[in-house]
Formats: sequence, structure tokens, C-alpha cells
Amino acid sequence: MAQMQASSAAVAAPVTGAGLLERIRALLPAIAANADRAEQERRIPPENIAMLGEAGLYRAFQPRLYGGLELDAADYGPCLVELAGACGATAWVSSLLAQHVHGTALFSRATQDEIWGANDGADLIASSVAPIGQAEIVDGGILLSGRFGFSSGSDHAQWFILGFRHPGRQPPRDKHFAIVRANEVAIVDDWHTAGLQGTGSKTLTIDGVFVPDHRIESLVALNSGTSQGFGANPSHIYHAAFMPHFNIGFPAVAVGMARRMAEVYAERTRSRIKVFTGQNAATRSPAAIRLARGIFPTEAALSLLEKDWRTIDARSAGRQLPDTDEMFRFRTNHSYCIQLAIQAAEELFGGSGGSAWFLSNELQRLWRNIHMCGAHAGTDYDTCSEVLGRYRLGLDLDPSL
Amino acid sequence: MAQMQASSAAVAAPVTGAGLLERIRALLPAIAANADRAEQERRIPPENIAMLGEAGLYRAFQPRLYGGLELDAADYGPCLVELAGACGATAWVSSLLAQHVHGTALFSRATQDEIWGANDGADLIASSVAPIGQAEIVDGGILLSGRFGFSSGSDHAQWFILGFRHPGRQPPRDKHFAIVRANEVAIVDDWHTAGLQGTGSKTLTIDGVFVPDHRIESLVALNSGTSQGFGANPSHIYHAAFMPHFNIGFPAVAVGMARRMAEVYAERTRSRIKVFTGQNAATRSPAAIRLARGIFPTEAALSLLEKDWRTIDARSAGRQLPDTDEMFRFRTNHSYCIQLAIQAAEELFGGSGGSAWFLSNELQRLWRNIHMCGAHAGTDYDTCSEVLGRYRLGLDLDPSL
Amino acid sequence: MAQMQASSAAVAAPVTGAGLLERIRALLPAIAANADRAEQERRIPPENIAMLGEAGLYRAFQPRLYGGLELDAADYGPCLVELAGACGATAWVSSLLAQHVHGTALFSRATQDEIWGANDGADLIASSVAPIGQAEIVDGGILLSGRFGFSSGSDHAQWFILGFRHPGRQPPRDKHFAIVRANEVAIVDDWHTAGLQGTGSKTLTIDGVFVPDHRIESLVALNSGTSQGFGANPSHIYHAAFMPHFNIGFPAVAVGMARRMAEVYAERTRSRIKVFTGQNAATRSPAAIRLARGIFPTEAALSLLEKDWRTIDARSAGRQLPDTDEMFRFRTNHSYCIQLAIQAAEELFGGSGGSAWFLSNELQRLWRNIHMCGAHAGTDYDTCSEVLGRYRLGLDLDPSL
Amino acid sequence: MAQMQASSAAVAAPVTGAGLLERIRALLPAIAANADRAEQERRIPPENIAMLGEAGLYRAFQPRLYGGLELDAADYGPCLVELAGACGATAWVSSLLAQHVHGTALFSRATQDEIWGANDGADLIASSVAPIGQAEIVDGGILLSGRFGFSSGSDHAQWFILGFRHPGRQPPRDKHFAIVRANEVAIVDDWHTAGLQGTGSKTLTIDGVFVPDHRIESLVALNSGTSQGFGANPSHIYHAAFMPHFNIGFPAVAVGMARRMAEVYAERTRSRIKVFTGQNAATRSPAAIRLARGIFPTEAALSLLEKDWRTIDARSAGRQLPDTDEMFRFRTNHSYCIQLAIQAAEELFGGSGGSAWFLSNELQRLWRNIHMCGAHAGTDYDTCSEVLGRYRLGLDLDPSL
Repeated sequence: MAQMQASSAAVAAPVTGAGLLERIRALLPAIAANADRAEQERRIPPENIAMLGEAGLYRAFQPRLYGGLELDAADYGPCLVELAGACGATAWVSSLLAQHVHGTALFSRATQDEIWGANDGADLIASSVAPIGQAEIVDGGILLSGRFGFSSGSDHAQWFILGFRHPGRQPPRDKHFAIVRANEVAIVDDWHTAGLQGTGSKTLTIDGVFVPDHRIESLVALNSGTSQGFGANPSHIYHAAFMPHFNIGFPAVAVGMARRMAEVYAERTRSRIKVFTGQNAATRSPAAIRLARGIFPTEAALSLLEKDWRTIDARSAGRQLPDTDEMFRFRTNHSYCIQLAIQAAEELFGGSGGSAWFLSNELQRLWRNIHMCGAHAGTDYDTCSEVLGRYRLGLDLDPSL
Repeated sequence: MAQMQASSAAVAAPVTGAGLLERIRALLPAIAANADRAEQERRIPPENIAMLGEAGLYRAFQPRLYGGLELDAADYGPCLVELAGACGATAWVSSLLAQHVHGTALFSRATQDEIWGANDGADLIASSVAPIGQAEIVDGGILLSGRFGFSSGSDHAQWFILGFRHPGRQPPRDKHFAIVRANEVAIVDDWHTAGLQGTGSKTLTIDGVFVPDHRIESLVALNSGTSQGFGANPSHIYHAAFMPHFNIGFPAVAVGMARRMAEVYAERTRSRIKVFTGQNAATRSPAAIRLARGIFPTEAALSLLEKDWRTIDARSAGRQLPDTDEMFRFRTNHSYCIQLAIQAAEELFGGSGGSAWFLSNELQRLWRNIHMCGAHAGTDYDTCSEVLGRYRLGLDLDPSL
Repeated sequence: MAQMQASSAAVAAPVTGAGLLERIRALLPAIAANADRAEQERRIPPENIAMLGEAGLYRAFQPRLYGGLELDAADYGPCLVELAGACGATAWVSSLLAQHVHGTALFSRATQDEIWGANDGADLIASSVAPIGQAEIVDGGILLSGRFGFSSGSDHAQWFILGFRHPGRQPPRDKHFAIVRANEVAIVDDWHTAGLQGTGSKTLTIDGVFVPDHRIESLVALNSGTSQGFGANPSHIYHAAFMPHFNIGFPAVAVGMARRMAEVYAERTRSRIKVFTGQNAATRSPAAIRLARGIFPTEAALSLLEKDWRTIDARSAGRQLPDTDEMFRFRTNHSYCIQLAIQAAEELFGGSGGSAWFLSNELQRLWRNIHMCGAHAGTDYDTCSEVLGRYRLGLDLDPSL
Repeated sequence: MAQMQASSAAVAAPVTGAGLLERIRALLPAIAANADRAEQERRIPPENIAMLGEAGLYRAFQPRLYGGLELDAADYGPCLVELAGACGATAWVSSLLAQHVHGTALFSRATQDEIWGANDGADLIASSVAPIGQAEIVDGGILLSGRFGFSSGSDHAQWFILGFRHPGRQPPRDKHFAIVRANEVAIVDDWHTAGLQGTGSKTLTIDGVFVPDHRIESLVALNSGTSQGFGANPSHIYHAAFMPHFNIGFPAVAVGMARRMAEVYAERTRSRIKVFTGQNAATRSPAAIRLARGIFPTEAALSLLEKDWRTIDARSAGRQLPDTDEMFRFRTNHSYCIQLAIQAAEELFGGSGGSAWFLSNELQRLWRNIHMCGAHAGTDYDTCSEVLGRYRLGLDLDPSL
């Protein structure tokens, strides 16, 4: 198969998780230097995407067949945490580009070949997954139309995963994803926000595009090992549900930014002089206490994420899908981890004074961006809390999670 | 005296607090319409300043002698609360322009005549009060130099109050204010921030400008009824300390924005549909609970402010300076009221989803601006907490508060 | 009328709010000295009830006709706040005994005469108001049965107000109160709790007791000026709804305890030495900061309560019932004020160390009791939040509030 | 050596961590059944100590030479978490009895032989470690006097570790521990508290007791691998610092209770009917949300503890002492984990209503006891926050941690 040869050439020696992390670390200064530009241009600088693509980040969950690395979650997660410390928007977009690959590897072989069979398997996939598309059933597939918001990294994708409700299915089994080519989609340049500007999470519109059935999967199928491509790729990492992998990025990015924020706060506090008193800020108890209270929740969140990553990997290594308890945990823990990062950000920023509000000061961007990680529909803390609570109370579940 | 006649003409009939509030209410739609522009231009649109000036806001605490209204704090405060609902930056700047007048009315008569004796008493006074100026004692005054940050409304002022430490005095009695003409000061266009952009709180530089002693007062003198102009104006509102009046604006602006935020949240939630579920957001318990938890702290803060305003007025009406307990209360309560507004903002914004982050959405601006009210050196919650706590523990005080 | 003469003798000169407060202040040392005993005996010492009864506390809202004081809410509330500083349980019980009087004065004249026509009008009324009684309609009234929990001060009452759903009415207009004699009720000595032990909030049982219709009112009627006795007593304080008066006590007691807690914390911190370091605890920043953060929320809560009390009084003085906005405010603000007191208690107790946990240390009792104020069905913060939020979202209301 | 033979007999086959956990699980129903009694008798029932002793809990860190299990921290910690779910007081005392063994195994061989050379090595060791003892240097040791508070499990110990400042050393190297026989100490029955009553953390008094130098170690020595017995026992678990092992119990117990609390809350909520509305409490959103918010922080805390336990074990397995970063982490993380447990307890208890306050309801005990875990001098959140913050700010350290 042509693509195999091509991709083997692209990534000659297998890259381990530690290897990927090392490669990314080497890029962090360059990524950080582009952070302002990402915000001003309201998209990730293409150089960032290129550098990270060459490093292999977007191949973390790609099948070896197409040149991928087939990494475990526990090897992948730390890459995002560190990347987020350099540029949260780049990490946010990159996490989605990388994680979409895992879901796509659960689609049919035909889909995988279409996407990764050319260009050395380097095509990138963005998405807008809320089920708001309108679908009309036609022979061999659907005609898909709709206006989809919040498509992070849309400027860099060759393919899009779009959510819709399948007119032939009943809730909650009707939530579906269709994969379409970027040239079938129009991008609306409407991403004018107060945070994560660099993610370029623009609106997509599509009007009556044909999507063949082999590029359509339901959320339930992707989460339950019943999708068309389940088992097609030999690695254990595809003996897994879609959702837990898809959710890795949001909290990892928030936690990575919060860790960076504590560093910046500490560096700055060491040299900060209070204007009214002429005192060194660092010597005051509240400055130290706020620093610690920025560190504690962040590290607790990270430890919880690491535990979840290991659980994901242990399940796939054992070729078992996560059980219901675990699915609820993966579905909801990430929202709490983001809240912990937000608490940390509030502690640190709340003690940083007016000078931290200047656009030249990294703290304000971290503070905004960390908060915004909690504003994703999937990371909503109230919803996730109610979902987990109802499950633990034995109330009716949402089968698609 | 010329200025008396002029100013009598300017405000023919005495305006009451209720009257001022009515006038301001009539301006709110126009002020709100300018809010985006204020942010983009990084200063208050001159039209806003003109409208509010004509309404009399900047004369709230001005002596009648110069055309002022001599309002009580309890009549003035609500004007800021409502104004902040239309544009927080305009309210922030306006509060300072109005409150500086009260402090200036405690300076020498000569100072007052210089400032308000011309232009119908309409000159405006901005400030940068942290004691960072360098002063050299010369005959009859000082030569003042320095670089002063955070001068809100600097673009609109004809005069500036600048902080410095008097080389001839010992701490903490060395903190002083000098009043200089705007044309003696250079404004650095450096106000590039993530919040309250419209306040145009730019840096001022001044180099060796002579300030006569009659335009110099110490913070202690202004707070203890021993300044050169104390008693010069007959109204009871000048039988008061500088600091409590100066602090009125910060929390009033934060609370006013938080009240507006609850309104916007409620309006928006009523019509918001959750994309993943198609459900009306308003019918979910967490949406209602977050609204209430945005309202409760805001209303508690407002009631505490109103109580403090009444106490300020009761003291001045009785021609007594506030006692030590009250001074500590006025010095610190405002920081807590801002924290309550921030809590409200976090509750409301934390449940508003990704669409609230668009720059076209008022919620994100309110959320940013409310937070930034707590970043002023004088409103720092840790400092104010420690100041109050130490006082109540009977530990050594800072005589200048 | 005999009772008028008798009661005129009992309280010769009219007692003002300030007068009642003075009388109660004089009793505080004796009340405080009984606080441990109240906890151990799981009821208020009868001496406390007697002292406070003689002082007139239970007559605060009683019609003059029966010897009452007819005080405004703003005069009554501070009495509870100060009383709670001496003994929270005594204040809790006393508030209910006093407030039940207001509701009873909205019942029929026949009911009022029955209760206050003898014993110089000194009979006391306790309650269990949740609508859990079973009623059978009979000629001229009902037969009431049931098991009612949480009847605070039950040991001291001559009468009980009991809640039930009237079988002849539809929800939510079916919630009713019946007033029965204490000798028709059995008290179950089951009040074994971890907080507010002194309230003796025991279970009541009643089995088929006849209650005449004149001793029955609906919650809706009592809140809407349509009860049998509405207008029967001339004072403006009876031109009021039941609920706002009934709710005065819960938050006032919590706030009073929180104020006391800050005092005790400050006194103790001044002399506390940290065992590991030998340092005086008071000189550490966190000790001062925690004190302030125990004071701020408490004072904010008090200012909000005072504002609500004044609003209650302004409405009744104007002979208008509260409007819907106000009813929702009175129905829900108290739950937030208790939360503020709980926040204060957590701040103060969280910094008090292990020695504060000894039963001999007042802090632990205050901490427990303040928390428990939030556990009343009517003060539940989640419920009150949702009630207010839904109202402000324009969703369907609960007509009985 | 006699003791080796005896102890080999005592525990014939080596018990693994999993084995110990299984043994303890079998005891949990009996331990739970004694929880009320522990509280009433203000000490752990001797049966609990005997059962857990036979199971091997107190031998977890004991050298094999004396019959110990030499378990890793990651194997030991979960035993405490589960035990705390049955009886927090028993877990608290047991954790100290078990952890003191680790510290004692770093004392001189002579000390170890004295303590474990008889009674099959079953002697138990309690402590009061704050450095408040008075020591007089005499030939070969010291004469120790003092009054030591908070000695948990004192009723069950044959030996006590007591803190004092060595008169021959300078701070902070002067903090020392002396080990004395229980019959040299008087126990004052003064443990009358509002929480963790069962721990029997009574005051000890000692008057001029001789302690030989071989039973004395400094805190610095125990934490830096320079104590007299360091290296005497071959297992890697003694190639470790004292403090991290000593701190394992406090947060593990708090987290175990918080996990139990979520279970009890869920069970109870499933069947709870709200008295005012007749509604099943479980179906209300806030009930589910509170449950989740009781679970999230608890699980985050547990994951952080597990990570720290693994780090402890990895260091000792590698025969390296923890580095400074790790020591600060072990010194402070536990205080945050307890705060997370307290947050969980507040969420759960705050939504449990008045019935949860009855002494017959497990929730109130869990709520009290979880809070009290944060009141230990070593777990103080403010202190730990400041310690960590100052370290990360590069400020001066406390060499003894």
C-alpha cells in the first residue's frame, strides 16, 4: 500500500512518548514567541502547526499504517501540559487535531484511507461536534447542511468532523458525526473573543454536501466498540472508546496554563515592589500563600488527570472498553480539573495587582484563557456535576454519555 | 467674586441627589451606546464626559461657591451604580473626577480659586496618588518629578493630583499630594490592558515642576481635618475626611456592573438554547441557581455600601470626623464589596458558556471589568483584610490609614 | 376586657425598640452563663425564657390590646443579633416565640382572645410548620393528626402552630396552619443533635385533635392580607405578610453568632502562642486576614438584613403589603445571609487550631450552631437560590412562596 | 536473637500490602459498629486496637527483624482510607501508631531492641511531637519534663515519642524527640471535644524522667538520613525521611471519611423526601450537583496522595532521600488534601438538611471529624501554604521543614 511506504519514510524510527515530549520541549521557546501573534491574528501561526506536525504531535494517535505513533494517553497528555505553558491556544488546537485522529481511527477503513492515504498521512482534522447539522437521507449517505460554531483550528484542517442528528435514529442514539473535506465547507471569520483568540474557533457552514455512510458514525457506536472501524487497526489504543480520548485535551491545556501561571507569578513576585509601601511583594505572607494556592489545585488536577490517563491505557491494554463508572469519570473529571485550574488562576491573578492587566503581561492572558477552558459545552461544570451526581444517585443515564 | 457669579449662572437651581440621578438616567442609553468605542479608543469618549459634566456629576462634591452641588455620599453613590451598568469605564473615570473634587475642597482656598475660579468652575481633576514622585524642597514649595502610572481619565483633566513623599517629613506622615496643571505633565499613551480599557489610565511624567505649598497637602492632614482648607467651605460635607469620599467609586462601579451582569444573564438565559441538548437553558436548575448567586452577593455589597454612605453623611452632618473604627471600615469594606461583585461575576459568567466570550457579548466585558476593579492598589483584598484584621487584633496601626 | 387591664398593668409604660434592646443587653451575661447548660439539658433553661419574657421580647409583635409592644422589624432584629452573641440556642428559640406572635395576630380575633385573653397575655407559641399533618374535615373544623419534627422551644410553649395540607384545597393553596393547645400535643424527647442542642427542637405528636376553623389559616391568606384577623389590630405592623416577619430570626441569629465568633477569635488570637514555633499567633498575617474575612461577610449580611427590616417596616407603615419582588427577596435573602455567616465561621474556625475544638471553647459551639442555622428547610440555600433565580428568569412561581 | 524468632512466629508468612488491605476490609463492619462507642468513651475501643493489631496494621512499617511487614507507602495508604470510612477516629489513631513505627526504626538499634525486643514486638507507640518539653542535660541523656497535649491513642501505647528543644542545640536544629515508657508518663483525661472524640488525644505530663541519648533524635537527623539508626534495618523503606511517612495518615483519614460521606449522602438522598414539598430529594438538580461536588475534590485529593505515596516509595526504592522539592511537597500537600476533603464535606452536609444533624446520623460525625483533620498543627492550611509559597519564591527555608 502506497501510503504505508510513504509514512514509513516520514517517521523513520518509532517515536516514543518520551521522544515526542523531548521534541516538543525543544519547540517551546519558538511557540511561546508566537503567542502574541496567535492572539492578534486570531489563529495559530502556521509555523506552529508545521513545527508540531513535524515533531509528530498530530500523529500521536494515528495508526502505524499511516505513519502514526500509536501512543498511550499517559505519554500524550504531558505533551499538552507542557505545550500549554508556552501557548494555550496552540495547545488547545493541537490537542483537538491530535485527538480527532483517535476517533477517526475508529471510523471505517475506507474513511481512514481517504484521509491518510495521501500526503504521507499528514492531513489534519478539525471539528464542530455539537449535533446541530441538518441531514437528509439519500442513497448511500446523507446530504448535510448547517452552521457549526466553535471549530478550533479550522484554518489548518483538510477535513472536518461535524455533528448532526441522524433523521433515521431515535435519541439518544441519533447523535452522529460526519467527516467532510475542508473544501466542502466555508469558514466564517467570526472568531472575535476575549479569550483563546489564537484558537481561531470559527464558524463553519455547509450546504447540502453528500457524505457517504462510510464517513458517518454515531457517538454511541464510537463509545461502545461498535463503529465500522473498531478492531481494524491492531494497536490496543484503538480498543478504546472515543470520548475519553477526545476529552484529554481540555483539562490538560488548562492545567498546563495554570502551571505556567504559577511560574510567572513567582518570577514576577520576586522582583515586584508595592508602589504604596515600597515593600518587596514576595516577603508578604499573602503573596506566598496565593502562590501555594495557585500550585495546590493545579497539582491535584494534574494527578487526577494522570490517574485517568493511566486508567484509559490500562483498559485498552487489557482490550476492554471502560466500564460505566469509568466512562462517567472520564466524562466529568475533566470539568472539575478545569475548575481547579480556574481556582488557581483566580488566586494568582487576584494577588497580582493592576500591572498584571497590561496586554504585555502574560498573566492576564493565562487568566483569561484558563477561564475559557471551562466554557466549552463539554466541560461545563454544572452539567458534568449533574451527570455524575445523577449516575451516583442511581437515576436514569444518558446512554451516549 | 467672578467665579461665584459665573457658576451661579452655570447651575441656576440647586440640583438634589435625586435630581442628579434622574439626569444621569436620561443619559444611560447614550453612554451604553459608546461603551464599545470607549474600549477601542482606550479612553472615555469626550461626549460622555461632556454629557455627564452638564448633568452635574463632576460637581457633586464641589463647593456651591464654584457652582457645585454639595451632595451627600448617599445621594452620590447610586449615580455611580447606575452609570456603571451602562459603561463601567465611564463610571470609573467619572467617579474619580467627581471624588477628587471633594479632596480638592479640603486644600487651601488659593488652590480652589486657582482651579475653579475660571471656566465656570468646570475644570476636571485626575490623579495618580501612589507616593512615587520625587520632590526637592525649594523656596515656597517643591520641584516635583516622576513617572506616575494608572491615571484614569487623564485625557480629560485640566489638573492632576500627584502623590509623593515629602523629604522633610517622616513616615507615615510623609505621604503627600501635589496638584499640578495638566500642561505641566506629559501623558504616555501606554494603556493597553485586558480590562477597563476605556478608563485610559495612562502614565504621567513630570520633570522638575514647581508646586507651591498651597497646592500641597499630606494624606494625614486630609484625613484628620488639619488641611489648609478644612473649614473653608461652609457645607457639612467638607467636615469630613478625604479617604472615605475618595473610596466611594471603586466598589460602587463594581456593584453597578454586577447588577447589570445579572440583568444581561437573565435576559440571555431566557432565550438561550443549549446546543448539545436543544434544551432551554433557563429551565435548568443550575441556570436559576447561578442567577441567584449572582444577585445575592451584589445586593449584599450594595446594602453594605449604602450603610457606609449613610455613616459618612451622618458624621459630616454632625460635624464630626469618622472615628478610628469607621475609618478602618471605610478603608477596607470597599475591597470586600468588590470581592462580592467578583464572586457574582464568576457565578454568572461561569454558567454562560462559550458564546458569552464573544466581544459582541456584554457579559465578557462586565466580567473582565468587574475583576479589574479589585486590582487597584487601594482595593487589594489581601491588604485590606490584613489592615482590618490587625486593627481588630489591637496591633500597630498605620496612622495615615 | 379583662385582658386589656391585666396586660396594661404588666407593661406599664410602652417599651420602645431601644428600650427592649437595653433590657436584653442587661441580661446577656446571665444568658451567656447558661449556654453550656442549655446544650447539656437540650432545652433553653426556663430562667432564660422567664428573663426574656419579663424583658418583653416575646411581646415584640404582640398587639397592644394584650400587652404587646408592636415593634417594628428594624427595632426587633438587633435584639436577636445581640442575644445570639450570648447564646445562639436561646436566640433561635426566642426568635420563633416572638415571631409566631406576629402570625397569630393575623389569625381571627377569637384565636387571639383564646391565646392571650388569659395569663396576662403571656402564653407562648411554638410551632412545626412543615405541612405534614393529616387533617379530616369535620363540622366546624378539622381533626388533626401527625408527627411533627423540629419544634424549637417546644418545652416552653402553651400553644403550637402546626402545618398541614387542607384536604379541601388544591396546591399550592392547601398549605395551612392550625393552632392547638400544648396539652393536646405529646412532646417526644428526641432532640439529640450535634448543634443547637439547646433549642430542644423536639418532635410533636398529635392524634385526632379537633381544631376549630377560627384557629386555622392558610399560608397564602397569611401572606396576602386575606386571613381572618387581617386588619383586626390597628397597628401598622399587622398590615404585613406573615412570611417576612417569620423569617427575621434565622439569619439574625446566625449573624449574631458570627459577630460573637469574631470577637472570641480576636480575643483568643491576641494571646495565642503557636506550639511549634512559640510565635504569637496574632502577629502572623493569616491570623489577621482570617479575622477580617470573618468580619466582612458578617457585616455585609447584617447590612442586608437591616435593609430588609427597614423595607418591611416601610411597607407596613405605608399600609401596603410587600410586592412580589420584595416577597421573593424576603423569602430568599435570609438563606444567603446565613451562608455569609457560615463563610465567616469557616474562616475563623479554620484558623483556630485544635484547641478550639474543646467543648470548653466557645468557638466550636459557635461554629456548629452557625452552620446549623442553614439546615432549616426554610433557609436551604439551594432551594432559596432556585426560587429567586426562577423568579428572575420569569419562570412559574410558587404562589404561596 | 530472641525477638527475631518470636516475631517470625507471630507473622508466619509475609503479609503484602494487598493482604493487609484484605484483612482490614474484613474488620470494617466490626470497626464501624464500634464508632459510636469510640465517641462516647472518648477513646478507641481496645477491641479495635486488638483486631487491627492482629491484622498487622501496626506492623506495616516495622522491621522484619521484629516481625514487621516493611510495606511501601502506596500499599499502606489505602488501608487507612478504607479504615477511615468505618471509623475516622480509629483510622486516625491507627495511622499514628503505625507511622510512629517508621520513625522509631530510624532511632538507634538499642532503642528498637528495647521497644520491640519483648512482647513479640507488639508494643505500640503514641506521641506528642510539638517541641514543648523542657530538657535538662545530664550524664548520658536528659531529664525531660513537660505537659504535652493532643496525644492521640495515648490509652493504648506502651511508649511515647515526646517533642522538646534540646538545650545544647541552636534553632532550627534544636527540635528533638525523646522516646519514653508509658509508665513514666501520666495521662490526663481531658479529651472533651466536638470532634474526633474517639482519638482520646489526651494530655500527657512527665516530670524529670531520664531519657538516655540513644532514645533521642533530632527532627533534622530523622529527615536527613543522619539519625543513629539510619541504615540499621536493611529494607529500602528505611532509606527514607521521617516526615513524609509521619504525614501519610492525616490526609488519608480525611479522604477516607469524605469518600464514606459521599456514599452515605447518596444512599440517604435516594430515599429522602423533602418535608415541605413531598418531593424525592434525589431528583432535584442541586442534590445531584452537591453529590458530584463531594466526590470530585475527594477523588482529586486521593489521586494526589497516591502520587505522593508512589514518589516516597520510588525514592526509598532508589535508596535516595527525597529532594528539597519533594520534601516541601510532602510537607504541604497533605494540608491541601484535607482542605479538599473539607470542601467535599461542606458540599455534602450543606445539602443534607436538619435531619443530618442528629447524632444518630453518620453524616454529622463525618462532617465534624473531617473538619477536625485540618486543625492539627502540622496540617494547618495557612502555615503549609506559606511554607510552600515562600519556598517557591526562593525565600529562606526552615531547614527542619
